[in-house]
Amino acid sequence: MPEVRIEESTRFMVDSLKAVGTPESEAKAQTDMLIHADIVGHVSHGLNRLEFYINDIITKATNPNGKPMILKETAATAWVDGADALGATVGNYCMDVAIRKAKENGIGFVTCKRSNHFGMAGYWALKAEKQGLIGMAFTNSSPLLVPTRAKEAALGTNPISLACPAGNGDNLVVDLASTAVAMGKIEIQIQKQESIPPGWALGPDGKTTTDAQLAFDTSRLLPLGGFEETSGYKGYALSALVEVLCSGLSGSRSSPNICPWEVAGNYEPTDLGQCFIVINPECFAPGFTERIAQCLHHWRNMEPVDPALPVLAPGDKERITAEMNHSKGTITYAQKQYERYANMAKRIGVKPLQAV
Amino acid sequence: MPEVRIEESTRFMVDSLKAVGTPESEAKAQTDMLIHADIVGHVSHGLNRLEFYINDIITKATNPNGKPMILKETAATAWVDGADALGATVGNYCMDVAIRKAKENGIGFVTCKRSNHFGMAGYWALKAEKQGLIGMAFTNSSPLLVPTRAKEAALGTNPISLACPAGNGDNLVVDLASTAVAMGKIEIQIQKQESIPPGWALGPDGKTTTDAQLAFDTSRLLPLGGFEETSGYKGYALSALVEVLCSGLSGSRSSPNICPWEVAGNYEPTDLGQCFIVINPECFAPGFTERIAQCLHHWRNMEPVDPALPVLAPGDKERITAEMNHSKGTITYAQKQYERYANMAKRIGVKPLQAV
Repeated sequence: MPEVRIEESTRFMVDSLKAVGTPESEAKAQTDMLIHADIVGHVSHGLNRLEFYINDIITKATNPNGKPMILKETAATAWVDGADALGATVGNYCMDVAIRKAKENGIGFVTCKRSNHFGMAGYWALKAEKQGLIGMAFTNSSPLLVPTRAKEAALGTNPISLACPAGNGDNLVVDLASTAVAMGKIEIQIQKQESIPPGWALGPDGKTTTDAQLAFDTSRLLPLGGFEETSGYKGYALSALVEVLCSGLSGSRSSPNICPWEVAGNYEPTDLGQCFIVINPECFAPGFTERIAQCLHHWRNMEPVDPALPVLAPGDKERITAEMNHSKGTITYAQKQYERYANMAKRIGVKPLQAV
Repeated sequence: MPEVRIEESTRFMVDSLKAVGTPESEAKAQTDMLIHADIVGHVSHGLNRLEFYINDIITKATNPNGKPMILKETAATAWVDGADALGATVGNYCMDVAIRKAKENGIGFVTCKRSNHFGMAGYWALKAEKQGLIGMAFTNSSPLLVPTRAKEAALGTNPISLACPAGNGDNLVVDLASTAVAMGKIEIQIQKQESIPPGWALGPDGKTTTDAQLAFDTSRLLPLGGFEETSGYKGYALSALVEVLCSGLSGSRSSPNICPWEVAGNYEPTDLGQCFIVINPECFAPGFTERIAQCLHHWRNMEPVDPALPVLAPGDKERITAEMNHSKGTITYAQKQYERYANMAKRIGVKPLQAV
C-alpha cells in the first residue's frame, strides 16, 4: 500500500481545498483536522474524507468563506450560527469561544447550527486539553443508527468525546461513536476487501451481517451494546443524548432529517448541530492532573488476560499509532484511496499526491 | 410476591431512616429518591438499598446530619464538600445550586466529593427537567467494571444520565450504567432465582458466566459493548469519562479506591465523587421542547421488527412502569427482600412493612 509523507499529504489537502476556493487559513485548519485522523490511525476520517468536503464546496453545500457568529450568549454559554462553513472553521470558532469562557468563568458551553462534518470529535476535545482544560465535543449526523426494536436507522453515529491533561504531556482521550462502530470502519474493511464481525451492522433482512459491502449499502448500524439483550438500548440512548445537546439546543436539523453524506457532494447545506464544552479544572479541587495520571497508571499496569495484549487507557491506541506514524514520517493509504485521489487531483487541477 | 402500598413503603423507609438518627426532612428526601426507583421499576435501587443506607448510618460511614457546603465557586460552577451526608442530601444541595446557576447564567456545573450513593442517576437529572431545564447527573462507585483486556475490575458502573422536557408533561430520560448492566440487575436475578444472559459478567475464570450468584460473588462486570470485538472499550471509556467529571474534578476517591458497598455497612466514609450539570435551553435556539417532542414522536412511531414490541424512546419503559404502579397504587417486592426487611424492622425497632 502507498506510503505518503505527512508533509506531502498535508500539501495535497491544502492545495485541493484552495483549488476550490477555500482561503489558505481555513484550508490549513481543515487539513490539520484531517491529517490528525490519519496520524492517529482513524484513516476513515482523514484523507479518505477530503473528496466529500471538496465536492460539498463545489456543489455549494459548504461555503468555504462562511463566517460563524454568535447569536446569543451569557458569560458561560454561546449559541452559534456556523454559516455553512467548513467543519474546522466552525469547530475552531466554537472551541475558541468555549475556551475563553472556561478560562474566565470555569465553563464554556457552546452549541452551533449550520455546521458541517468536523472529523474526529476527539480532535476538538484535544484543542482544549492542550491548554490544560477539559474539552468535550459532540456532533449529530445523518441517520445510520437503528433504534432498538426498529427496522430503519433514525439517529446518527453521534460521537461523544472528552480529553483532559494528565501532566508531563500525557492525557486521557475518550472518543467514540454511539454505534457499535463508526461507518468509516466499515468503509475501511471494504477497501481492504475484508469482512466485518457480527454485531456491527444489519443487512436488508434486519439481521446482523458480516458482509462489509452489504452493511455499507444497507447503512443500518447497531447501537453500542448491540441487540436488546446486551443493552443496545444504551447506545441508542447515548445517541439521543448527543441529539439533545446538538440539534435540540442549536436548532439545527435533527439526525432523521440530515441528508446522507455523499462523496459526490450534497446539493443543500448539511446543517449539522454540534456542541463544545470546556471545563477549567482550576475551579474545582486542586491536583486534577495528578489524579488523572494515577487513574492512567492504574489501568495501564493491570494484569492482562493475554500478556501480548496489554491493558490500554482510553486514547492509548491512538497515541501509539501517532508515535509510530510520526517516527516513520509517513501515512499508509489503501491503494484504492490513492487512485481515487489521483483522479480527483486531475479533476480539480492540483499536483497529485506523491507516494514515497 | 408481596404487594406493598406506595404510602406504606414510603412510611416504612422514612420511619427506618428516622430510627437511626436521620432528621425528618432528610429521611423524606432519601425516601423520595428510593421510592422513585421502585415506582419506575428499577427495584434494585429502591427499598432493596435501604438496609445498606441504614447500616452505613449505624456504622457512622454516613452522617445523616451532614451539611454539604460550597468550597469554591464561579457564576456557573461550584465545588462542593458533601460532608459524608446521605446521597439525597448531597444530591438535592448540588442540584439546587446547579439549577440556580443555570437559571442565572445558562449553565450550572457542580461536582462534589465526600458523597454517598445517590440512587438512580436519572432521578437527579429529572429534578432539573421538572423546572424546564436539561439535567445531567453522574457518579463514580466501587470497582465492578473490568477494563478491556484486564482480569480484574477497576472502575465503577459509573452511570450517565440526562433528562429534558418535551412539552405537555412528556420528556426524554437517558439513564445508563457504563457497564453492560448494573449490579442491581444481577441481584434481582438472584432473588428471582434466574440466570443472567452471557455478556453481562465474568466468572472467576475470566470467561462470561450465566450464573447470577457466581457473577455477583465474582463482581466483574463487562463494560457496555461487551468484549473487545464488539467495542467493549467504549463502555470502559465512558466509565473513564465519568471518573474525570466525578473524582477527577472533585478530589473524591477514584473508583479503584472505593470500598465495595456492603449491606452490613461500611466502617469508613465512602467518599464518592458526583457531578451535576444543568443547562437552560432558553440561552440557545428557541423551540427546544418542540424539537425534542419531534424526535420522541419519530422514534415512537417507527415500524418495529416485532409488532408486539413497539419502539420506545429513552425513558419510556420507566414511564410505562411508573404509570402501572401508580394506577395499582402498590409496588411488588421479592419475597426474600420482604423477609429481610421484617428482620431489619425488628432490629432497629420500627413497625414492619405491611403487604396488602
